[in-house]
Amino acid sequence: MSTNINHILKTTGSYKIAGTLWVEYIGERCFGPGRMELLQLIDKTGSINKAAKEMGMSYKKALGMITALNLQMNQTLVITQTGGESGGGSSLSDAAFALMKYHVDLRLRFQTFLKSETKLLLKSQL
Amino acid sequence: MSTNINHILKTTGSYKIAGTLWVEYIGERCFGPGRMELLQLIDKTGSINKAAKEMGMSYKKALGMITALNLQMNQTLVITQTGGESGGGSSLSDAAFALMKYHVDLRLRFQTFLKSETKLLLKSQL
Repeated sequence: MSTNINHILKTTGSYKIAGTLWVEYIGERCFGPGRMELLQLIDKTGSINKAAKEMGMSYKKALGMITALNLQMNQTLVITQTGGESGGGSSLSDAAFALMKYHVDLRLRFQTFLKSETKLLLKSQL
Repeated sequence: MSTNINHILKTTGSYKIAGTLWVEYIGERCFGPGRMELLQLIDKTGSINKAAKEMGMSYKKALGMITALNLQMNQTLVITQTGGESGGGSSLSDAAFALMKYHVDLRLRFQTFLKSETKLLLKSQL
């Protein structure tokens, strides 16, 4: 069922349906766009600190996000090596790559939903 | 296509896909859960001030939200009467009721999407 609200939309400018999605664990956000970006940047930079900086957040906050995520999942997602010849650094586990791939797929399906809703909203304007 | 991440989910506790939606006009949020609640409370209380209080926001902020919404749509959504025997007050236009009905329907379709995504996420856990 869809209520048509075309008569209350302006004919100029553009409307669309937008939104955001996340995975919840026991009622708490556990994986959404923010943590996705953090994982991507850790993969890119090899460092939680550098990833945090690129996102304009503190190292402490980024570490808190990763610690929470590691606890909310069955497997460790970010592997941190301290010291050693390479001076430590962080990398992603296979589980993290699987989670990121899942998130990309989920977003694609969500984009399809949003596009279809936008089409429905504008139906009689076309 | 769906990537299965079941192996990285805990078997205890519950996961679900959650999210939020809104209508955008020229790239700006114009109608989502917040404005929906505001309209519902104006309808209930007959007053922007009372509605704002129930939402824990200032009258000024609520008025700003309504002014913006009125500008983003083709029709006036909140009708404010000043003075008079009844001492003024605010009520919703037919356009506002149509918008609210649309929003309820949209949310129902979104809930269906979220449920189906949650099912997909947990598929091999069942």
